[in-house]
Amino acid sequence: MELGIIGLGKMGYPLALNSKDRGVNVFVYSENEEKLRQAQEDGIKGFHQIDDFVQSLKQPRVIWLMIPAGDPVDQMIAKLTPYLSPEDVIIDGGNSQYRDSIARYEALKGKGIHFLDVGTSGGVSGARNGACLMIGGDAEVYKRLEPIFLAISNGKGCGRMGASGAGHYVKMIHNGIEYGMMQAIGEGLSILRESEFDFELDQVAQVWQSGSIITGLLMDVTADALKKDGTLSAIEGIVNVSGEAEWTVEEAVRLKVAAPVISASLFARFKSLDKEKFSEKSLAAMRNEFGGHKVIKRGGE
Amino acid sequence: MELGIIGLGKMGYPLALNSKDRGVNVFVYSENEEKLRQAQEDGIKGFHQIDDFVQSLKQPRVIWLMIPAGDPVDQMIAKLTPYLSPEDVIIDGGNSQYRDSIARYEALKGKGIHFLDVGTSGGVSGARNGACLMIGGDAEVYKRLEPIFLAISNGKGCGRMGASGAGHYVKMIHNGIEYGMMQAIGEGLSILRESEFDFELDQVAQVWQSGSIITGLLMDVTADALKKDGTLSAIEGIVNVSGEAEWTVEEAVRLKVAAPVISASLFARFKSLDKEKFSEKSLAAMRNEFGGHKVIKRGGE
Repeated sequence: MELGIIGLGKMGYPLALNSKDRGVNVFVYSENEEKLRQAQEDGIKGFHQIDDFVQSLKQPRVIWLMIPAGDPVDQMIAKLTPYLSPEDVIIDGGNSQYRDSIARYEALKGKGIHFLDVGTSGGVSGARNGACLMIGGDAEVYKRLEPIFLAISNGKGCGRMGASGAGHYVKMIHNGIEYGMMQAIGEGLSILRESEFDFELDQVAQVWQSGSIITGLLMDVTADALKKDGTLSAIEGIVNVSGEAEWTVEEAVRLKVAAPVISASLFARFKSLDKEKFSEKSLAAMRNEFGGHKVIKRGGE
Repeated sequence: MELGIIGLGKMGYPLALNSKDRGVNVFVYSENEEKLRQAQEDGIKGFHQIDDFVQSLKQPRVIWLMIPAGDPVDQMIAKLTPYLSPEDVIIDGGNSQYRDSIARYEALKGKGIHFLDVGTSGGVSGARNGACLMIGGDAEVYKRLEPIFLAISNGKGCGRMGASGAGHYVKMIHNGIEYGMMQAIGEGLSILRESEFDFELDQVAQVWQSGSIITGLLMDVTADALKKDGTLSAIEGIVNVSGEAEWTVEEAVRLKVAAPVISASLFARFKSLDKEKFSEKSLAAMRNEFGGHKVIKRGGE
C-alpha cells in the first residue's frame, strides 16, 4: 500500500501518521519546510517539489488531498494533473461541495484519471487513530483502494456510499446531524446551569458518558471540555459555521424535506455570530411603537 | 449488598438480572405470577405479598421502584411505608417529575425514611448490562448505597447530581437532549432518502457508527433498525411523547433559556401524532381566501 498526501494540516498530518503506523508507505508534499522536517523526523518521506513528489509514487498513483475545500482543491488538481498518468487516483478528503466533486470527477475522467470524494469524520483524533470515511466514486477504484481505507479507518469505518459525489453528500448530511446533536447538548447544559440545583456540569457530562442513551463522541468531548473548565468561563459563546450544514439546509429546501432541528441548529450558530442583533432591534422598536414599551438606547439607560 | 425491586417490566426485570449478576442479593415483588415464576427460574427470590417481601429484606432496607411515573409511585409508596422502618431507603428509578420527587422525599423524611430519585438511562440493554444512573438525594444515603449503584452501572455510570430532585432533573434534561439528537438523525436520514443518490441507509448508518463525530448509542440503534429494514417500510411515522421532554421545554420557558432545537424536536413529535392537521388546514384556507389557491377537499376534489 502506497499513498501520497498533500496538506499537512490538523487533519492531514495525523492521517499521514495513522497511515504510516498501519503499514501504508506514505509520501507527503508540502511547501512548508518546518512540516517537511517534522515528517522526516517521524519517518515520512517529504517533498517540496510537486514533480519529485509525483514521480516518487509508483503507478498507478494514489494521491490524497487534505486541503481546504473550494478553489484550493481546483488549484491543486490543476498543479498535479500535468504529472499524472492514466489510472492514477486523486482522493479529495476534505469537505467539498458534492456537486464540485462530481464536476472534478467528470473533468478528470476525460484524462483517464480517477477521482474519489472521501468525506472524513472523527476530528484530529479520528484522523490519527481511526477515521470514518464516506466514499463516493467508481466501484472498481474504491475496491482497488479499499485496503488503504480499511487501514486508516480501524478496519471498519469506511464504505462506498455510491457514485461520484455520494461520499461528500453523506459527509454533508453527517455534519448537519452533528450541528443538531451539538445544539441539543448545548441547550440541555444551558438549562441545567440556570436551574436552582447547583449542578457540577463536568460531573453530569461524565455520568452521561457511560451507559446513557446520549453517549457518544460528542458527549465525550463535552465532558473533556467541562473537565478542563466546568463553567466554560474562558470561552466566548461564538460558534463558527463551515459550509456543510448550510448545504444540508439548502438541500432540505431543494428536496422539500422538513428539517426543523438541523435548520434551527444552523440558525442558532448564525445568531451566536450576530453582534448587531438587528432582528431583536426591530422587535424592540415595534414594541415601542405599538405598546410604548421602553427601548434600551445604545450607550445608556 | 441487598436490593428489593418492585416493577418487573421492560426496565425493572433486566435491572434485577443485572444486579444479581453483579453480586447483589435481589428480592422482587410482583402480583404477576408468571413474572414471579420467571424470577424463580432465574434464581431471584420473588414475593407476591408486599409484607412478606418487605420483611424478607434486611434492615435498613433498600427498595427500588421501577414502575410508571405519577400516581403509581405514590400508590406504591403508600402501600410500602406501613411496613418500613426508619433508615430504610426507597429509590424511584422511573421518570418522575423532579418536583414530585422532592415532595416524596419531604413526606418520607417525616417518617425517617430516606428517598433517592434515580434517573435511569440506557434502555433495556443498559438496565441489563450497565445503566447510567443520575441520582438525587442526601449525600450520606447516596454514599451508603454507592456500591449497589456502581454494581448496576458498570462501575462508572453513576453519580450523585445533587440534592433531592437533582437526579430526575438531570434525567429530564437528558431526555430533552435525546429528543433533539434523535430528531437530527431522523432529518438527516430523510434528506439522504430523498436525494438523487440511491443510498443504502443501513450501510450509511453502519459507516457512521465507527469513528465519526456522530457515533454513539443512538447511531448504534439507528444502524440496528436499518439493518432489519433498510426502508423502515413496516414502521408508521408516529412518535409518542413521554413527559420528560415536555418538562424540559417547560423548564426552558420557566428559566427563560432559549432551546430552539429541543423544543423543535418535541413539536416535531406532536406533529407526527397529528392526524387532523388543523394548522395546515388553516393555512390552506387562508391561501384560498387571499390568493384563490385551490384547497384540497376531504374525500377528493
